[in-house]
Amino acid sequence: MSAGWIAVAGLGPGDAALITPEVTAALAEATDVVGYIPYVARIAPREGLVLHPSDNRVELDRAALALDLAARGRRVVIVSSGDPGVFAMASALFEAVEAQPDRHGTDIRILPGITAMLAAAARAGAPLGHDFCAINLSDNLKPFAEVERRLRHAARGGFAMAFYNPRSKSRPQQFARVLDILREECEEARLILFARAVTTPDEAITCVALSEATPEMADMRTVVIVGNAATRRVGRWVYTPRSVPA
Amino acid sequence: MSAGWIAVAGLGPGDAALITPEVTAALAEATDVVGYIPYVARIAPREGLVLHPSDNRVELDRAALALDLAARGRRVVIVSSGDPGVFAMASALFEAVEAQPDRHGTDIRILPGITAMLAAAARAGAPLGHDFCAINLSDNLKPFAEVERRLRHAARGGFAMAFYNPRSKSRPQQFARVLDILREECEEARLILFARAVTTPDEAITCVALSEATPEMADMRTVVIVGNAATRRVGRWVYTPRSVPA
Repeated sequence: MSAGWIAVAGLGPGDAALITPEVTAALAEATDVVGYIPYVARIAPREGLVLHPSDNRVELDRAALALDLAARGRRVVIVSSGDPGVFAMASALFEAVEAQPDRHGTDIRILPGITAMLAAAARAGAPLGHDFCAINLSDNLKPFAEVERRLRHAARGGFAMAFYNPRSKSRPQQFARVLDILREECEEARLILFARAVTTPDEAITCVALSEATPEMADMRTVVIVGNAATRRVGRWVYTPRSVPA
Repeated sequence: MSAGWIAVAGLGPGDAALITPEVTAALAEATDVVGYIPYVARIAPREGLVLHPSDNRVELDRAALALDLAARGRRVVIVSSGDPGVFAMASALFEAVEAQPDRHGTDIRILPGITAMLAAAARAGAPLGHDFCAINLSDNLKPFAEVERRLRHAARGGFAMAFYNPRSKSRPQQFARVLDILREECEEARLILFARAVTTPDEAITCVALSEATPEMADMRTVVIVGNAATRRVGRWVYTPRSVPA
């Protein structure tokens, strides 16, 4: 068996102070870094390290490349933004492993990171301080009817919600539909947070009542957090209480 | 205004390599560390640093102490396990701030950490690789009927689920009831993961079909992850695919 390995590493939301020492150590040992162009751009080049940036939506090709490199004895870090297990590369890698039975013995480690919703929540206060859901709003890999079904169950269950990939150029109208569904399920005063590019120089955080939210408040760099019915402001903060009255 | 501050810091699940540099820097500047006894025990003592360990279930007293210390110019870190915004001290602090209007100007930062479900998911593969919910199973602060309602919505919405505080000595029967509800809502082969003390020397991870799960598989140090209907094994890993077929 080769001495190669794969680590799927979460780089966190942007600030280098949120990268775990575990991830930093894996990068220091790596011979190859594989990932989406803007995430590979966050890795400092050094001698002996080969960077393999690739485009969006080629996750399975990227995973197959990492498996090939590891089989040849290379030490490969697949970089993800945030946490690799949350709407990121870890699942794509296991899909690729599943399709290639001769790769089942590959030495794989998943290295967690600070995912966008938790970084955004921390900047805003504690809007995810009680039961919550994380939903990927993109319909690239699931029908929008499934997104709608999950939104309604999340709202009716009293969950706070975090939305990844709320809006893109290829589906500009969909987030307007999401806001309509939320308005059918939740009261007008429900708080909704738009957290853009958290922990980077472009960070912008806006909190409004659901009745005031517009689709343009979100883009692909935004994570959206919807509070539960008890979520409220205190000073400049937004938080969700820990308790539900009987 | 005093130069005191409060940072609510997530220490991650246990391994020091999962503590962010941001948290390490805050601890280096602190004059006081406040928190639940086992979390304060993770902080190395040093000259000039006062440790204030306190018991479980006194979160509001602990928050009030931190606010008093900050008002006197102290630099206070409130330590949480995992992420402070996920079933931890951040919400409790804002509850305390809300109750004391003269503290609304306190300099507060929330420093995110690696929460238990994401560390557990990483160890197991990628079981939270698609839409998921996080539910606190404790009925200390909410009626069990609310837990049941959320479990059914999460299952019917097709979410994977992560459960915090699944079982304690004071409520040994409740997790058996949770398993019964899941069996009513999900198929027998649904995968369920019991991840105990992840990233510590006591780590133990078990994955079984829902039909084989027993209440004794969980304790207070366990985070439980239930896959969605598509969650499956590949080699020694468990993962949830990124896609939902139309």
